[in-house]
Amino acid sequence: MMQSELFLDVRYYETDQMGIVHHSNYVRYFECGRTDMLKKAGLPIEKIEEAGVMLPVVSVECRYKVPARLGDILKIVSIIDSLPLAKLTIRNEIFNQDNQLVAEGKVVLGFIDADSRRPVRCPKMLTEFFEKHI
Amino acid sequence: MMQSELFLDVRYYETDQMGIVHHSNYVRYFECGRTDMLKKAGLPIEKIEEAGVMLPVVSVECRYKVPARLGDILKIVSIIDSLPLAKLTIRNEIFNQDNQLVAEGKVVLGFIDADSRRPVRCPKMLTEFFEKHI
Amino acid sequence: MMQSELFLDVRYYETDQMGIVHHSNYVRYFECGRTDMLKKAGLPIEKIEEAGVMLPVVSVECRYKVPARLGDILKIVSIIDSLPLAKLTIRNEIFNQDNQLVAEGKVVLGFIDADSRRPVRCPKMLTEFFEKHI
Amino acid sequence: MMQSELFLDVRYYETDQMGIVHHSNYVRYFECGRTDMLKKAGLPIEKIEEAGVMLPVVSVECRYKVPARLGDILKIVSIIDSLPLAKLTIRNEIFNQDNQLVAEGKVVLGFIDADSRRPVRCPKMLTEFFEKHI
Repeated sequence: MMQSELFLDVRYYETDQMGIVHHSNYVRYFECGRTDMLKKAGLPIEKIEEAGVMLPVVSVECRYKVPARLGDILKIVSIIDSLPLAKLTIRNEIFNQDNQLVAEGKVVLGFIDADSRRPVRCPKMLTEFFEKHI
Repeated sequence: MMQSELFLDVRYYETDQMGIVHHSNYVRYFECGRTDMLKKAGLPIEKIEEAGVMLPVVSVECRYKVPARLGDILKIVSIIDSLPLAKLTIRNEIFNQDNQLVAEGKVVLGFIDADSRRPVRCPKMLTEFFEKHI
Repeated sequence: MMQSELFLDVRYYETDQMGIVHHSNYVRYFECGRTDMLKKAGLPIEKIEEAGVMLPVVSVECRYKVPARLGDILKIVSIIDSLPLAKLTIRNEIFNQDNQLVAEGKVVLGFIDADSRRPVRCPKMLTEFFEKHI
Repeated sequence: MMQSELFLDVRYYETDQMGIVHHSNYVRYFECGRTDMLKKAGLPIEKIEEAGVMLPVVSVECRYKVPARLGDILKIVSIIDSLPLAKLTIRNEIFNQDNQLVAEGKVVLGFIDADSRRPVRCPKMLTEFFEKHI
């Protein structure tokens, strides 16, 4: 298992007229979480893309529990349970500073060759990386 | 069943460095679709909120099929299959100008009293509206 | 002079917790306006980029007059007064459905060679286009 | 003079198909910078709003110098030179990790009574705060 935590302040522009963080932003928080997880483990996403691999999103799920608000400091937890084959699955949980579960979800990424734009199996550089970390 | 179509041009700021529409924007397209569906049926969301009811998102699911790109004109299809009780479920499909399925998903909304911020069952004004349209 | 109008509904996610459209979105509306102006005149931005020219933003100015709100239908006016040389200047005005001036501003674009990423003078394809339309 | 620095990682969703941070996001970075400046000085924006004062944006200017990219860690500098009367002016500079000036600009905020939504002079709680810090 590979797990990571990222702390983010809610940004004003992320709120909507309900006075809470707009629901679309949690999908972006998930992305921030997994991007940061890879970076901390030594493989930032821009290096993966420079190597000719793209990781487009195949599916997203998010369940909203407690609204996040301006002033909240959110903990974005990202978890990879198992080695990716054709796809990489990341589970996410978001907590606020009172340790309430704000949202949880799951993101599935594919692997694409940047030139051909065709799906490929998890490239060797990523398999080796994940074998070391999961 | 209640169904609606909304056509949207992809906006430049919605693209990302993969050269495609960033995945988080489809969640926003879904919102544009359902907001427009309500508006066309005579009940814009701002009237619902003025009546003291808010419709926070409970869950979102999205599966990505074919990437959308700048220049695409997207058709956002929104479908409500059945009368809401405690929750309102909307199915969405997004097609491009070549009639390819770009993305599909499901959004579940709750009903909240704007003052107490507590969940309520579907308010009468909305039940009557949906009975007329579904 | 080249002038164009685009009508946009305010989107829910564009509002913030002040209950109005977040100020950053007007910069995006300006972009929607000029992109649409070029498209209507027969030269969509994706064609310009396919020809190897990018138009990065050099500067933006926006003055906010009357807040836009959910339910508003905004008219984005884009105006090019003179032929571009090293830079292209676009003036923008945004009006609501009551013909109130919501915001006004100015955007300056540069021309960049997509390969070298170096500034260039306005390319021939664009000069000819603007000579025909301005 | 009041000055503050905030460090932000570029987020993937902030990039566009030019492969750089979309220009509208700098306006949002400016907001992050000034919000953080107020927070660090002990007066988070949500406390100001709870006290019935809103700070809508009156004008924004931004000049773009060097594009920001994924992987960049941006330093957002926010500077208030003088005590606000009817308006609060904040200057911003954004630098990358190589200390290059990425963008610079100026944001002017007004003061609004949250109930009446009418402009007011800088409220006492804010005047006292700024007298202590500027």
